[in-house]
Amino acid sequence: MTRAVVPGSFDPPTLGHFDVITRAADVFQEVLIAVVQNPSKTPLFTAEERVAMLRDVAAEWSNVEAEAFEGLLVDFARERSAAVIVKGLRAMSDFEYELQMAQMNHHLSGVHTLFLPTSPEHAYLSSSLVKDVARLGGSLDGLVSAAVAAQLKERYS
Amino acid sequence: MTRAVVPGSFDPPTLGHFDVITRAADVFQEVLIAVVQNPSKTPLFTAEERVAMLRDVAAEWSNVEAEAFEGLLVDFARERSAAVIVKGLRAMSDFEYELQMAQMNHHLSGVHTLFLPTSPEHAYLSSSLVKDVARLGGSLDGLVSAAVAAQLKERYS
Amino acid sequence: MTRAVVPGSFDPPTLGHFDVITRAADVFQEVLIAVVQNPSKTPLFTAEERVAMLRDVAAEWSNVEAEAFEGLLVDFARERSAAVIVKGLRAMSDFEYELQMAQMNHHLSGVHTLFLPTSPEHAYLSSSLVKDVARLGGSLDGLVSAAVAAQLKERYS
Amino acid sequence: MTRAVVPGSFDPPTLGHFDVITRAADVFQEVLIAVVQNPSKTPLFTAEERVAMLRDVAAEWSNVEAEAFEGLLVDFARERSAAVIVKGLRAMSDFEYELQMAQMNHHLSGVHTLFLPTSPEHAYLSSSLVKDVARLGGSLDGLVSAAVAAQLKERYS
Amino acid sequence: MTRAVVPGSFDPPTLGHFDVITRAADVFQEVLIAVVQNPSKTPLFTAEERVAMLRDVAAEWSNVEAEAFEGLLVDFARERSAAVIVKGLRAMSDFEYELQMAQMNHHLSGVHTLFLPTSPEHAYLSSSLVKDVARLGGSLDGLVSAAVAAQLKERYS
Amino acid sequence: MTRAVVPGSFDPPTLGHFDVITRAADVFQEVLIAVVQNPSKTPLFTAEERVAMLRDVAAEWSNVEAEAFEGLLVDFARERSAAVIVKGLRAMSDFEYELQMAQMNHHLSGVHTLFLPTSPEHAYLSSSLVKDVARLGGSLDGLVSAAVAAQLKERYS
Repeated sequence: MTRAVVPGSFDPPTLGHFDVITRAADVFQEVLIAVVQNPSKTPLFTAEERVAMLRDVAAEWSNVEAEAFEGLLVDFARERSAAVIVKGLRAMSDFEYELQMAQMNHHLSGVHTLFLPTSPEHAYLSSSLVKDVARLGGSLDGLVSAAVAAQLKERYS
Repeated sequence: MTRAVVPGSFDPPTLGHFDVITRAADVFQEVLIAVVQNPSKTPLFTAEERVAMLRDVAAEWSNVEAEAFEGLLVDFARERSAAVIVKGLRAMSDFEYELQMAQMNHHLSGVHTLFLPTSPEHAYLSSSLVKDVARLGGSLDGLVSAAVAAQLKERYS
Repeated sequence: MTRAVVPGSFDPPTLGHFDVITRAADVFQEVLIAVVQNPSKTPLFTAEERVAMLRDVAAEWSNVEAEAFEGLLVDFARERSAAVIVKGLRAMSDFEYELQMAQMNHHLSGVHTLFLPTSPEHAYLSSSLVKDVARLGGSLDGLVSAAVAAQLKERYS
Repeated sequence: MTRAVVPGSFDPPTLGHFDVITRAADVFQEVLIAVVQNPSKTPLFTAEERVAMLRDVAAEWSNVEAEAFEGLLVDFARERSAAVIVKGLRAMSDFEYELQMAQMNHHLSGVHTLFLPTSPEHAYLSSSLVKDVARLGGSLDGLVSAAVAAQLKERYS
Repeated sequence: MTRAVVPGSFDPPTLGHFDVITRAADVFQEVLIAVVQNPSKTPLFTAEERVAMLRDVAAEWSNVEAEAFEGLLVDFARERSAAVIVKGLRAMSDFEYELQMAQMNHHLSGVHTLFLPTSPEHAYLSSSLVKDVARLGGSLDGLVSAAVAAQLKERYS
Repeated sequence: MTRAVVPGSFDPPTLGHFDVITRAADVFQEVLIAVVQNPSKTPLFTAEERVAMLRDVAAEWSNVEAEAFEGLLVDFARERSAAVIVKGLRAMSDFEYELQMAQMNHHLSGVHTLFLPTSPEHAYLSSSLVKDVARLGGSLDGLVSAAVAAQLKERYS
């Protein structure tokens, strides 16, 4: 049985993130979404809020869970007995940074990272672009779930 | 139990390919190396020779096998009940072409492709570069296994 | 009134090409699809066949025409009084080559090239990948029009 | 008649920006330079100053105007009846971000984005690099217009 | 006799930086490591501390020195009679930014920049990633020298 | 005294190649242009013709020579006591392939490769694009020297 960790900021989760989680849940026996809790950054949503948003989604699958973590991702992966890290890839600029992280994480721990391409229709989605659209009053249809859209609108109103 | 197909030309397999196979064997319960048999190309080694080279390597793991295939990769993957395709990634230029293939394969069959980064010290290895070195009489140490090196030298002598 | 030339091999035209033509027809008053007739290459379909495939599509708009050309694209553009060249862009690897061509064409003639991104769901489509799928007996649904699919199947049967 | 919006921060406008505006004015009947007014960023020059710098330049063409805007670019484009967004492209790293923006803007509004390559000799110019040079006392010849250079020197003295 | 300037922030120097310095010391008669002292940024280590770390390393070669500088790099290079700037390159994303800087520096001064690829096993190393690992308590073996590791641990304890 | 080898096909040499040679002659005490003689390719000009074209150019500097070679570049570099390989870089797609070659050459011999960016106005020039323009009857002004242009016209007439 292989447990995969899917790390990210998810501030907020987009439909692109949900797509990667769906694909990971298809491939691995257990999927653990790991929400980065970085004390030096100020996210729009707290780690608790982001975990709650992801648990709403995770409820659709029996093999997906979500949790926040602090510290090194590879330490968290080992504590949770996860064999691999899985990251969505949208574009080449993602790839180079993620490759650097993957090689650092392998150097630190021997844990492998696998990359899952997002579906093409979500390739232009990012949490920061979604926040810009929300802040400027644009429609969030097709970008995030209805539940996340409601929370974004409330936050920027 | 997840079976992963690792496709490629492997003409010949390099230490970079062996590195990807090792990583795949760590992560998935069963790994099936799928050697492309393309009637319109003239490889240096026949599909049978390439399968034999890979079986030598596969013998080190109990969960790795090698086989040649013709036709669409996704048809082969489904016939062999493989849930995912796994590809090694060395560099950004690989990535863009491989992403295109991954999205086409998902469109054709719903089968997901996962990308595994090669270890950094193998990032500059490719079968065609190795063949150039062999043809021009350079040392093959650190590029291919001793068995593959012997066959390359024989072929170019 | 601005006339735009949309050049390409279109061997065969994919749904991605149709998407770029649609977008060009939205933006420019006249669109002239220019089919490259390169005597040194052996396409699957003759220039006449490719022009016919594109005219079928062009018939949907009152402002789109298709024609074959030989020689320098910028000479053809000037003969047809086209002010700009318009190219679809799918991916970064396209971009670098196309940028080189655009700068060469501007150097030779002063004609500007504008790039139109394809819709994300067509980003993985290319004529050569479509020919591979057709040759190996895969489904062409969602890749090319029904008319083009029929001609591809006939060619590879 | 096609009106094109050319958006940007232009903090300050460089000779590369002027080159893109010139090319856009060649191709489109009307060009509207749209200066981003982002309340969460602290530019070196106010939106009014940047619009004034661009109007100096725009005065050379009868079909170019400049204006500041707040909010979503696609809302501004529709209010001004602009059919297309035109962006200069210098390099591949620009391209990936701009492609993401173009696809988001098309998703939000159906407005198309066209990319215009800058001339090669301006490919290394960016507003932030120009500000670094000015701040450190380097020569601004060949980077910005004499008028903009004067304002940069004043600002950093 | 050719003197080369190797500029950087080196906050802190990694084994990848040492690798580039070694290679530069092989190729050029004199190597001057130039530590950027940027008053608008807050580095983890002062310019003096970074110069000291690099001098420890420079002591291994008779032809390498380290110094801090303020202002334009090309002014510093000319003051020190350096004929070329040498930069390590790890990855494509580095390359595009560095190419822009190289062309700006050549425009400002006529000084050429040469790029030296880092060894593949250091391609994933960057000062900022190393600081993240140190901050989160990860092992610094294989990332920085023992002396730099000790200073990083002290800083983050 | 440092001798640098500048390898390439130079089929034919463009103004971009001359620009790189000029830059190399500025930086290194001796420059040896190494013309690849690949028996498996059919160039437009023989190795002798290409060496002659380059010697015409080399005559402008006292420290530049040109020679053809067969076999591994690193063997040639060592026979000629060259300490470094110098390559021009135009664009990111060049970079990735050249980085792979540089790392292979370092693995085979310990010889370092340095990359020299071409001037921006030559970034779109390549020998193959120049041959296309010549074959289709376009003007060669600003692409190659007058002497090379004359030979290209003769070859394609």
